[in-house]
Amino acid sequence: MISSKEAHDIIYKCSIQFEKSKEELTNACGLVLATEVTADRPFPPFDRVCMDGIAISSEAFKNGQVEFRIQSTQAAGQPPHSLNDSNHCIEIMTGAVLPKGTDAVIRYEDLELKDGLAKVQLEEVRQWQNVQKTGIERLQGDVLLSAPQLISPAQVAVLATVGKAEIDVVRWPEIAIVSNGDELVEIDETPEDHQIRKSNVYALQALCKKNRWPSKTYHLSDNREEIQKELNSILRNHRLILMSGGVSKGKFDYLPEVLSDLGVHKQFHKVQQRPGKPFWFGTYDRGFVFAFPGNPVSTFMCATRYFEPWMWKNAGLKLKSETALLAEDFRFNPALQYFLQVKLSQQGSHLLATPYKGKGSGDLVNLAQVDAFLELPAERNYFKKNEEFRVWRIGVNSAI
Amino acid sequence: MISSKEAHDIIYKCSIQFEKSKEELTNACGLVLATEVTADRPFPPFDRVCMDGIAISSEAFKNGQVEFRIQSTQAAGQPPHSLNDSNHCIEIMTGAVLPKGTDAVIRYEDLELKDGLAKVQLEEVRQWQNVQKTGIERLQGDVLLSAPQLISPAQVAVLATVGKAEIDVVRWPEIAIVSNGDELVEIDETPEDHQIRKSNVYALQALCKKNRWPSKTYHLSDNREEIQKELNSILRNHRLILMSGGVSKGKFDYLPEVLSDLGVHKQFHKVQQRPGKPFWFGTYDRGFVFAFPGNPVSTFMCATRYFEPWMWKNAGLKLKSETALLAEDFRFNPALQYFLQVKLSQQGSHLLATPYKGKGSGDLVNLAQVDAFLELPAERNYFKKNEEFRVWRIGVNSAI
Repeated sequence: MISSKEAHDIIYKCSIQFEKSKEELTNACGLVLATEVTADRPFPPFDRVCMDGIAISSEAFKNGQVEFRIQSTQAAGQPPHSLNDSNHCIEIMTGAVLPKGTDAVIRYEDLELKDGLAKVQLEEVRQWQNVQKTGIERLQGDVLLSAPQLISPAQVAVLATVGKAEIDVVRWPEIAIVSNGDELVEIDETPEDHQIRKSNVYALQALCKKNRWPSKTYHLSDNREEIQKELNSILRNHRLILMSGGVSKGKFDYLPEVLSDLGVHKQFHKVQQRPGKPFWFGTYDRGFVFAFPGNPVSTFMCATRYFEPWMWKNAGLKLKSETALLAEDFRFNPALQYFLQVKLSQQGSHLLATPYKGKGSGDLVNLAQVDAFLELPAERNYFKKNEEFRVWRIGVNSAI
Repeated sequence: MISSKEAHDIIYKCSIQFEKSKEELTNACGLVLATEVTADRPFPPFDRVCMDGIAISSEAFKNGQVEFRIQSTQAAGQPPHSLNDSNHCIEIMTGAVLPKGTDAVIRYEDLELKDGLAKVQLEEVRQWQNVQKTGIERLQGDVLLSAPQLISPAQVAVLATVGKAEIDVVRWPEIAIVSNGDELVEIDETPEDHQIRKSNVYALQALCKKNRWPSKTYHLSDNREEIQKELNSILRNHRLILMSGGVSKGKFDYLPEVLSDLGVHKQFHKVQQRPGKPFWFGTYDRGFVFAFPGNPVSTFMCATRYFEPWMWKNAGLKLKSETALLAEDFRFNPALQYFLQVKLSQQGSHLLATPYKGKGSGDLVNLAQVDAFLELPAERNYFKKNEEFRVWRIGVNSAI
């Protein structure tokens, strides 16, 4: 049996190359930008007025002129007016192009306006005051967004500004999510006394969905011939397979055998961890099979700890390594790496992890009440309050 | 001019009641559960075998029996077998119902199997060992998920287990996102020298999308009559309006006037903050108008700081109040509440906020490089390293 660290290393030695595809900007938030984006023109693209008021020639003010006749009014979005007489001014709005012949803007707050005359109430007028000069933020050709990077609303704003109505994004492959076991029935069915409804495939599907990874679900019976036939087709149609169940020691846990028969090379089976000990991982010519134990908490932990960050890494992104302080002493005796379910909170600027144990290893409901798994090292069995450990968040929005 | 705190309080005194709607479970991740969910049967629903091995009568073992003839093999998903002879056993798989007449499970690891006989290699066998008793996790009727709560993958798993193929969710109203200003052209157009492309509506649309709030975009010209007509229709068709631009002092900033003419009651205009000083907020019979300043960073900050958390609050959820330590001394002289753009990182278990200033108040590109706004109090102008301030995250996935 290998350690959690070894399992991690084996998985991370594997890589998958994602293709690019085109996506409309309005649907891009949450996807990964695949091609860097440069400025199509300077930012700002013209000498931009950044206050409402009047535009003047600072030279005229320096020469003693304080009252300026308003020659015209120029809104944002209008081609720039031209100042005909340097002792006059042009009334001007935020976002407008600085009128020709002017080089300073006086805010309304610093003016007295009367009968078409604007009287400047300032001691001094600096050249280019209240003006953002062409290219002061970025020059044409500057890289605005490197790639790859996750597209959040701020990235969308930048992409809109440079006219990217359509962009290159990482094309996530469709992930196969495969449940198995005759004890499982569909969610809209009423199970017999000895049956339960499927839940792991729905959890995995939701995990994919929150990351905007497309997925398709399958179900295998406990019949070996059927498993082999169906799995063969799944392996041919997908490059990433997430399975749940069928990897324990049971008589009907054919999966490792069948996968091997179908050319999937076992990289490991069983990891010194709880939950998720029977975790099986294999590779084949086209891709990768993550076969998680059927226990709901095990499937969930393995997907969160191993699969999810590995996917981001393959897209060229990196998860931030987040840690938290254990809020109370905790004991775990077995020589296994324990992934403790915790609630996260802040105390001062510290992130605190408070153990919140479920009622047994299959207690799914507990998962819905915690924020993360805390990774407790296998080589110890006593963990003290205020010690710092790695955190793996499970929610869809960490701010709530 | 009011303070940021006052603006917050005025907004939070307003509330909007969201309706419920039905949603398919497979599309529920990221939505808000609107009705609490109870257990349709006990968890687990039967005495569940949690190891692969054999099921025996612990009484027989106590009476000296150590070798058990395998009577039959029972898989998960099969109706329970019955033990005919208490000196026999039933081979049993994880997830199966405990067979009738048995009350303990011995793991394969603790057995020697030969010629249809299973020899127990243990000193002691406890009643109910490796068995999860009916209802040990939850009883029928127990509340499994309270409402309202955000639906993450773990919630989806619980909902699947209790057969909720369709659930009640908070029905987010369609949000109107309104740009205005003749200087703006569409993203697929090439702007004239004095024009720029729209970006704020796309940023706001993406912000809505990341929260799964539906939205619809509109654009108003700088023509007052047209604004009035179009806005009237928007107000009649939506309960939540986000606007960007048109609230400064400019000659063509008709919005506050027009909104007032249309029956929208101004709650405040201008907040002692940077960015976002000209922020305007109003209420009308049907709903609310958040009119953000046209500067992209201002719109972004106001939407993140005021609108987004207010929406969650109205859905009955609460944002976690997150703070970070300032990573270096920082000075900001104006008597305004400053929302400083920062990168977030961890040092030990501390969250650190490193100032990352853009090149001017309109520098959109900088927003795409930071993680959050740090809220620096208005009454001070010097902020020391390691002081703790409130953080407002802006990304779509805080782990990346």
